[in-house]
Amino acid sequence: MTSPASAAFPAPASAPVRRLDWLSGPDAAAAMKPETVVVIPTGAIEHHGPHLPLATDAITAEAVATEAVRRAHAAGTDVWLLPTIAYTKSDEHHWAPGTMWISAETLHSTLVDLGRSLATLGATRVLFLNGHGGNVAPLGVALREIRRQFGLHTFATSITVPADDGSHGGDELGMPIHAGFGETSLLLHLRPDLVDMSRAERAVPEHLAEFDRIGFHSKPVSFGWLSNDFGPSGVIGDPTGSAAEAGAVCFEDNVAGAVASLAQISRFTPRP
Amino acid sequence: MTSPASAAFPAPASAPVRRLDWLSGPDAAAAMKPETVVVIPTGAIEHHGPHLPLATDAITAEAVATEAVRRAHAAGTDVWLLPTIAYTKSDEHHWAPGTMWISAETLHSTLVDLGRSLATLGATRVLFLNGHGGNVAPLGVALREIRRQFGLHTFATSITVPADDGSHGGDELGMPIHAGFGETSLLLHLRPDLVDMSRAERAVPEHLAEFDRIGFHSKPVSFGWLSNDFGPSGVIGDPTGSAAEAGAVCFEDNVAGAVASLAQISRFTPRP
Amino acid sequence: MTSPASAAFPAPASAPVRRLDWLSGPDAAAAMKPETVVVIPTGAIEHHGPHLPLATDAITAEAVATEAVRRAHAAGTDVWLLPTIAYTKSDEHHWAPGTMWISAETLHSTLVDLGRSLATLGATRVLFLNGHGGNVAPLGVALREIRRQFGLHTFATSITVPADDGSHGGDELGMPIHAGFGETSLLLHLRPDLVDMSRAERAVPEHLAEFDRIGFHSKPVSFGWLSNDFGPSGVIGDPTGSAAEAGAVCFEDNVAGAVASLAQISRFTPRP
Amino acid sequence: MTSPASAAFPAPASAPVRRLDWLSGPDAAAAMKPETVVVIPTGAIEHHGPHLPLATDAITAEAVATEAVRRAHAAGTDVWLLPTIAYTKSDEHHWAPGTMWISAETLHSTLVDLGRSLATLGATRVLFLNGHGGNVAPLGVALREIRRQFGLHTFATSITVPADDGSHGGDELGMPIHAGFGETSLLLHLRPDLVDMSRAERAVPEHLAEFDRIGFHSKPVSFGWLSNDFGPSGVIGDPTGSAAEAGAVCFEDNVAGAVASLAQISRFTPRP
Amino acid sequence: MTSPASAAFPAPASAPVRRLDWLSGPDAAAAMKPETVVVIPTGAIEHHGPHLPLATDAITAEAVATEAVRRAHAAGTDVWLLPTIAYTKSDEHHWAPGTMWISAETLHSTLVDLGRSLATLGATRVLFLNGHGGNVAPLGVALREIRRQFGLHTFATSITVPADDGSHGGDELGMPIHAGFGETSLLLHLRPDLVDMSRAERAVPEHLAEFDRIGFHSKPVSFGWLSNDFGPSGVIGDPTGSAAEAGAVCFEDNVAGAVASLAQISRFTPRP
Amino acid sequence: MTSPASAAFPAPASAPVRRLDWLSGPDAAAAMKPETVVVIPTGAIEHHGPHLPLATDAITAEAVATEAVRRAHAAGTDVWLLPTIAYTKSDEHHWAPGTMWISAETLHSTLVDLGRSLATLGATRVLFLNGHGGNVAPLGVALREIRRQFGLHTFATSITVPADDGSHGGDELGMPIHAGFGETSLLLHLRPDLVDMSRAERAVPEHLAEFDRIGFHSKPVSFGWLSNDFGPSGVIGDPTGSAAEAGAVCFEDNVAGAVASLAQISRFTPRP
Repeated sequence: MTSPASAAFPAPASAPVRRLDWLSGPDAAAAMKPETVVVIPTGAIEHHGPHLPLATDAITAEAVATEAVRRAHAAGTDVWLLPTIAYTKSDEHHWAPGTMWISAETLHSTLVDLGRSLATLGATRVLFLNGHGGNVAPLGVALREIRRQFGLHTFATSITVPADDGSHGGDELGMPIHAGFGETSLLLHLRPDLVDMSRAERAVPEHLAEFDRIGFHSKPVSFGWLSNDFGPSGVIGDPTGSAAEAGAVCFEDNVAGAVASLAQISRFTPRP
Repeated sequence: MTSPASAAFPAPASAPVRRLDWLSGPDAAAAMKPETVVVIPTGAIEHHGPHLPLATDAITAEAVATEAVRRAHAAGTDVWLLPTIAYTKSDEHHWAPGTMWISAETLHSTLVDLGRSLATLGATRVLFLNGHGGNVAPLGVALREIRRQFGLHTFATSITVPADDGSHGGDELGMPIHAGFGETSLLLHLRPDLVDMSRAERAVPEHLAEFDRIGFHSKPVSFGWLSNDFGPSGVIGDPTGSAAEAGAVCFEDNVAGAVASLAQISRFTPRP
Repeated sequence: MTSPASAAFPAPASAPVRRLDWLSGPDAAAAMKPETVVVIPTGAIEHHGPHLPLATDAITAEAVATEAVRRAHAAGTDVWLLPTIAYTKSDEHHWAPGTMWISAETLHSTLVDLGRSLATLGATRVLFLNGHGGNVAPLGVALREIRRQFGLHTFATSITVPADDGSHGGDELGMPIHAGFGETSLLLHLRPDLVDMSRAERAVPEHLAEFDRIGFHSKPVSFGWLSNDFGPSGVIGDPTGSAAEAGAVCFEDNVAGAVASLAQISRFTPRP
Repeated sequence: MTSPASAAFPAPASAPVRRLDWLSGPDAAAAMKPETVVVIPTGAIEHHGPHLPLATDAITAEAVATEAVRRAHAAGTDVWLLPTIAYTKSDEHHWAPGTMWISAETLHSTLVDLGRSLATLGATRVLFLNGHGGNVAPLGVALREIRRQFGLHTFATSITVPADDGSHGGDELGMPIHAGFGETSLLLHLRPDLVDMSRAERAVPEHLAEFDRIGFHSKPVSFGWLSNDFGPSGVIGDPTGSAAEAGAVCFEDNVAGAVASLAQISRFTPRP
Repeated sequence: MTSPASAAFPAPASAPVRRLDWLSGPDAAAAMKPETVVVIPTGAIEHHGPHLPLATDAITAEAVATEAVRRAHAAGTDVWLLPTIAYTKSDEHHWAPGTMWISAETLHSTLVDLGRSLATLGATRVLFLNGHGGNVAPLGVALREIRRQFGLHTFATSITVPADDGSHGGDELGMPIHAGFGETSLLLHLRPDLVDMSRAERAVPEHLAEFDRIGFHSKPVSFGWLSNDFGPSGVIGDPTGSAAEAGAVCFEDNVAGAVASLAQISRFTPRP
Repeated sequence: MTSPASAAFPAPASAPVRRLDWLSGPDAAAAMKPETVVVIPTGAIEHHGPHLPLATDAITAEAVATEAVRRAHAAGTDVWLLPTIAYTKSDEHHWAPGTMWISAETLHSTLVDLGRSLATLGATRVLFLNGHGGNVAPLGVALREIRRQFGLHTFATSITVPADDGSHGGDELGMPIHAGFGETSLLLHLRPDLVDMSRAERAVPEHLAEFDRIGFHSKPVSFGWLSNDFGPSGVIGDPTGSAAEAGAVCFEDNVAGAVASLAQISRFTPRP
């Protein structure tokens, strides 16, 4: 593959990814079996502080999905990948230049339209492999809508990253929310050329620790936040201790988890 | 209270609930202070099996919210109640006669419209106290939308119910999802006249235990389900061991939790 | 029923209201006969001057509907009540703090969604018993839409209030539009604890009498008005002569009218 | 008028209609004074039985509006006409071939968009002169929406037709709803070439007289009807006694009424 | 034509236009044969400089369509005319007083709604005869939508006007885009009473000639423009050399073209 | 590039593409100068016959855009690339399994949302480089909408492919519409591994040649077509003579054209 133009759609030499959109329509239809899982990564193009690229969530979602599909297929799960939805609901970063966001309504319509298309294809299982926290709620709404309207079995899973609890030199107080240790380490593993650690600064909303009932996850009360509610940087975490090695571990954990999930999705039924 | 017509809007004799809609507009505006929390319960009118009333979620949300507002106010938190949104997004029960559901889009518009209204009022903090699991995702979307569009601090919390782990005679395998032990006990406490225990039957999707990565809560993979995916009854749980005493405990736990949450919401700021 | 939390959903001791949402789904479906009428009150939470509560229209709609359903059932009409839609289209009071309004589009979607739900239930007749003038036009649109889309027989009726023609000490010049003699009297009957007559002031747009072709009702030309078009108070009428006795009469008239209407709705067919 | 192509936009020789769209943009803007009234007729293209043209409502609305604008201007009222909106909300005739209808949502958007345009123009008063009953409710919604969003003074009036009470040989029982004596007579006056009296048949829903509380107008209960609810013809009235003379009287009455209305609209203010 | 009111809907004496909306619904349905073409003109009411009326595009579309339908019918093509959609998508002139525009979404909904209506009628072929450049793209979207949703064969054609290449005294540099030589000449032919040549001024964006790859038509790159991007007049062309004779030629060319098109549309099938 | 996961987002070693989403938000904002052009490719995932992959249009759009941005930057034009919108409006192939399409409304919302985002970024020029014919009309609508709402200079250009006029052994009769010689040759150049020439069959709607006034391009009448209107294969063209060499020429032509276009877009102004 010498043409520079084709770089963006590389055909891997050894362990080919199963890209459904690289098949013809008839072949794609023929490939759909009851146990087949179609995977659509959902990323984001949004502000990730001064040290990470806008595409961070799209890169991680696509990377994890690509590798998970590859390995799952190798392990015998019938799974196919479709292109990443890169532009998603990043309204919490709407204030930040570079955030390319679509509204909740637009994302919902996009997901439902794709559900309709998958039903025409004959697919019966779809997994949205998500790299952006802001998509979790709208995906929750869409999973049910697509199931109700088109009868598909619908699934979503999101990439998880560890918090730096001090063992890496930073301290996130359990809030690895955005552009912190985990995401930065992932990028240092996947695309170190896009990370500028010299601009990585800690921005942990320590103040939130005062509220044991209100918080980002697993607190009784959720809240509607914008990323500049906590400070001007838009970072919510501590990327200063990030490292490629930790990113590699995190990547492997997510891929392994996704592979295990895909195996279960492929045989999942709500009733015996 | 002799007039039968006023029964639905009773004026409590001793410990008055702070109903914001019982004030005049000017008084409501004057009541809004920076620390004031406005509470809007969100319920549902939806199929809850043959043994529970359609209004189960509206009853529990309104009951918990009413009592929590009463106690929070008594404890010094500045909090006001607004009417329950009874009809919400119950599309997972769309198949079941009696489910009165509005679409995801309609609920989103409703919540955003109310956010706009609260901004005109001068309110700065709103808590949606939610009694229906299907509202969690759309509330997540709306909290952010209202914050972004109108600048309100937005919060949501949902009523939680315990699973019967066998100690009450039933067994829910950790899935007290719908019309099971917890909800049924709550209703036996709040409105026993509306419960018919003779029709309470166990309907636990035991099959799901085979999937450790896919499930209702705290599993890596969420899925889009309809309540008849698991069987014809629409129940997901085991109500057979339900009891008013357990319901009373559950009610108290939820009220106490909400009171504690309201105190924190009243002084919550994302930055110090 | 000693729990204060259950006050909002009281189970009347003697003459039970037929609340459809207090039945289980299967029971609700079984209750639907060809002659059954389902009643949904539509109120408003909106500015009603400094002397009346925001919930005035929700209170009156729910009170009239509740009592009418009770009496109609006692009189042999097969009728069931559903929860009030409290938040409706109050855009004419959008400027006034405390008005909790949803847009025309949101209300339309809500009504159509409920129509779809009623069709699933097996209901064939629905009456929207309306307490807010601003809902008349959107209800007109929705009645037809629901009939066309789902085949239901759809009906709407609105609470009417008399004008003070001077015989009660005020003078409304035939314009008992908003927060005037009739509504205030109704509230003095239903919820006197929520009325502050010391702040009741006359605000009659006398100027409109110059226009015999343009006006609120039964004039050849209708006009789009906001409640602050006529003055800063948002009142359009003269509440100064209001009295509980007049309110009781008005309440009885509306209930009796609704009972008579329900009997006809129950057997209404467009063709013999 | 020799050019056949210009027939549809004839320039009247003697008493020119003031067509605002026949001005240039700058001239139209210059013509807008505080007392100027812009008139937009709203018709319908819908089934009117076998004896009347689909365009009946568009013809009558445009004819009345055109002549009223002409006379009002001659009488000193500053008034301008814009093109008729011919396709409107005729969903009650959706079943009938030939009905060209737009949905409630589409009509609402159209009216609001035109309100925005009128605000840019500098117009402050707009009258929708309506020839179709099905537009009354959506116009009611739009009048307020345009006033709220753009500050225009908004008005609507509808053409009224008499019922044949037997004095013309037919009998409409007070229900001259659709394609009956009044409309047919109007068309016999305005466009007799489009009327086929040999196919005019009485279709009066006599059965409705049994319901004194439910009905088309001025009954306590309105209902959502489709024109084929009452019978297969889609006619609701008795056109058999129709005559051009009665149509001429009706036309004159409507024009005279509109002229009087326009004079009042031109000087209408909600406050002195 | 003695009745002033009927001027707007004249019944031509000799060569009647086939107006579908002048038929009754049953007659319109009976008239629909497989080869029948229904024509809907789409115009605009928008700023056309100081010398042309706002209705320019509506006038030309309706005039060409009316005459083309007349002649096509005389020539044996089965074709029917419906009323002009006068208010369309003129957002490029949104800044100019007098432009009466509807949004892209509103126009799309209108066109799709009319497609649905035509399907109920039994029509199978529809031509939108368009007089406004801004409608070309939305018509392109709607043609496919109507075909997909309702199965109609859908067509669109737009009026074309020549550029003054200097031979008429003006010079448009190949850009007869808006209110220039062609449109002005057409109006001088059709409605000279509405043209004020004393205010016709050249406004040709000569600067665009520097960009051979970006332009209005047939350039590789299209661009989103507003009519005041090029200068304050809103004219894009050179109307100074306009003449009725050139307008007559242009009119004849467009009519003849439309007649030829209608003949082909009437027998068009995508497959043999 | 050893990490398999990073294959999808390769960092080119020598001539880096300027990917805007690979910058941080602050760097992206700083990169925006008045002459900067942001490029967003728009592709499609849709049926392309049995011989081409579903992703054909996404592959070609991304390949041309990537290489054009690379060369344009090297040639001194300030240009940045954003991720491809892969799922677009392919409703003409809605019937074909594998087509992943979003509706016209969804695509419009997506494009407008991205326009809003670009305005926040500080970008002033955006080019949609389009690989799918079905996007041309909706892009036309969106270009103007984005310009009007956000003030951006908006541009669109589409990849063009030659017809096989017989000189390559096929014959397309001037209709290289879909999956024919040009597109197939392009894919043979860019991704030969995804092409199965053994299944390439000619499907030219020869019948259309009978209609000189109706057709795909540059005919007076456009029509709304679905790809199965012409036959069951969904191909509209003749791919049998396709060759990588012709694809290379076509690719170079498109890239060179885009480079030239970008240079002009970078300095384009509607007025001098």
